[in-house]
Amino acid sequence: MSDLRSKFLEVYSVLKSELLNDPAFEFTDDSRQWVERMLDYNVPGGKLNRGLSVVDSYKLLKQGKGLTNDETFLACSLGWCIEWLQAYFLVLDDIMDNSHTRRGQPCWFRLPKVGMIAANDGIILRNHISRILKNHFKGTPYYVDLVDLFNEVEFQTAHGQMIDLITTLVGEKDLSKYSLSLHRRIVQYKTAYYSFYLPVACALLMSGENLDNHVDVKNVLIEMGTYFQVQDDYLDCFGDPEVIGKIGTDIEDFKCSWLVVKVLELCNEEQKKTLYENYGKEDPACVAKIKELYNTLKLQDIYLEYESKSYEKITKSIEAHPSKEVQAVLKSFLAKIYMRQK
Amino acid sequence: MSDLRSKFLEVYSVLKSELLNDPAFEFTDDSRQWVERMLDYNVPGGKLNRGLSVVDSYKLLKQGKGLTNDETFLACSLGWCIEWLQAYFLVLDDIMDNSHTRRGQPCWFRLPKVGMIAANDGIILRNHISRILKNHFKGTPYYVDLVDLFNEVEFQTAHGQMIDLITTLVGEKDLSKYSLSLHRRIVQYKTAYYSFYLPVACALLMSGENLDNHVDVKNVLIEMGTYFQVQDDYLDCFGDPEVIGKIGTDIEDFKCSWLVVKVLELCNEEQKKTLYENYGKEDPACVAKIKELYNTLKLQDIYLEYESKSYEKITKSIEAHPSKEVQAVLKSFLAKIYMRQK
Repeated sequence: MSDLRSKFLEVYSVLKSELLNDPAFEFTDDSRQWVERMLDYNVPGGKLNRGLSVVDSYKLLKQGKGLTNDETFLACSLGWCIEWLQAYFLVLDDIMDNSHTRRGQPCWFRLPKVGMIAANDGIILRNHISRILKNHFKGTPYYVDLVDLFNEVEFQTAHGQMIDLITTLVGEKDLSKYSLSLHRRIVQYKTAYYSFYLPVACALLMSGENLDNHVDVKNVLIEMGTYFQVQDDYLDCFGDPEVIGKIGTDIEDFKCSWLVVKVLELCNEEQKKTLYENYGKEDPACVAKIKELYNTLKLQDIYLEYESKSYEKITKSIEAHPSKEVQAVLKSFLAKIYMRQK
Repeated sequence: MSDLRSKFLEVYSVLKSELLNDPAFEFTDDSRQWVERMLDYNVPGGKLNRGLSVVDSYKLLKQGKGLTNDETFLACSLGWCIEWLQAYFLVLDDIMDNSHTRRGQPCWFRLPKVGMIAANDGIILRNHISRILKNHFKGTPYYVDLVDLFNEVEFQTAHGQMIDLITTLVGEKDLSKYSLSLHRRIVQYKTAYYSFYLPVACALLMSGENLDNHVDVKNVLIEMGTYFQVQDDYLDCFGDPEVIGKIGTDIEDFKCSWLVVKVLELCNEEQKKTLYENYGKEDPACVAKIKELYNTLKLQDIYLEYESKSYEKITKSIEAHPSKEVQAVLKSFLAKIYMRQK
């Protein structure tokens, strides 16, 4: 395990112990145990990419000058706030999607003792972020900006989730609503803000920057986040299940995937009919027809073209940025996702 | 309808329209409609006591000097933030409790088109509070205190809800965990902070007060909130269903009610056996045995004694407060709840 990763995990233990002894609440033994178990089950089990990238970004912004122990602790804490945010979304998303597993274990709400208490646990995860920020950043000049940032990004994510839910789940499966612009909106709000913009915005605030001066950074990161999600949609159908670690079900689930909106853009009337008749069905024969359609329309080639064009566009935007440090941060994000197979 | 009430409802329309046109999200027509319907269904349909009491309290703190239009708008907005907070809790509580009706209509998640999307709607309600605060209070000297206040009170409420859920629902119905101290903790955190302390704290912040100087006010209000919930527990069993508008089911639901913890304190071994054998059962014969036990132990008399002692204690605390305006605020709260029958 890398040094940073183990340092990062140490900070988790510190934050957890503070939360379990928060003077704003008188814990009973049972409730303290409950929260501890809930945190260990839901917060640290992911890849931690979002959280670690706060620390990486902050280091790059400091031009590799090395961080003091305090700075490392604070950057790790902000990283954990993002991991907590992610845990909060996942716990509630799994309830809404009626999912079974998450990160290789049963979803939290599936545990017999938990059930719908998971909804309240989600709220508690969200509240922990406010407590961590208050405990460690209340005295800083950027405290109020941090709080506003987390609130705004949460607002955007919840709204992205909403349009995803109301177009996918409302029972009126209606492909005519699907379009590139709807896809972009879902992806941008549901994923890109909190996964790409938020970590860098945290690092910028810690460096004393005013986020109003960094709208261009936000735009590039949202662009990267969109590109990342298009990859996700592509890999769901064309990726190697052995490599990505799951079998995609976007077609069965009637997802507003980049692939299906591309088909809608490119197909003739007959192909459209095939799409309408087979998309969103569990039957493997229907799924096969959709995949055949994807192949007929050469979606793999169109994807490769999208990928290289996106890469080019993003690179240009990055190189137009006046600060070499910011460029380094953005390039490190791009390098992590370009041409990924998982 | 009173003037204040109609003014208050006007402010709701203004806030709603701002939220439906929030530049932080690009609404689709469908999603804007969804949020509007969700707000109208869940936010304004209650008694609005908590919200209106912010405006009442602020007026009293201003010594009846009369409010400017701006001040009225701001006080109403804070009142609505509390109503939004309440709506958020209720939407999620109803999912967790698997409830059927709320405020005389089906619970939001029971609507066929809604279902589990209600969990995300709950999150959106919470996020609206942050947006309202940012839109209208960002420039004020007390903005950060307001944000911290709402965060802290939400944290406390969620933790109160948690101990209620894990003692009542976990399936291991165990009366031996019930005690006056557990009851106080649940009530204080789950209800008193947001229903009693929060409205007054909002009014104090608007008046330029530092909440750290008003710990005594907080304590009195928490005391009143506790007293209010004991009344609620009492009325659930002994109130007139015609008057309170529902038929209580605390006994059937194995609730940690003030009545049952009082019985545990007062009963002999035989009565305890009766309690253990019959509490938390749907069977009307079991419920009748519990009510008989309540009567044998003269819980009605004990309640009346509790009520008059609480009233006395709270009155003394209020009169010890140096500010006549603050006294007026606290007395107006107490007057609304003392000896209530519903």
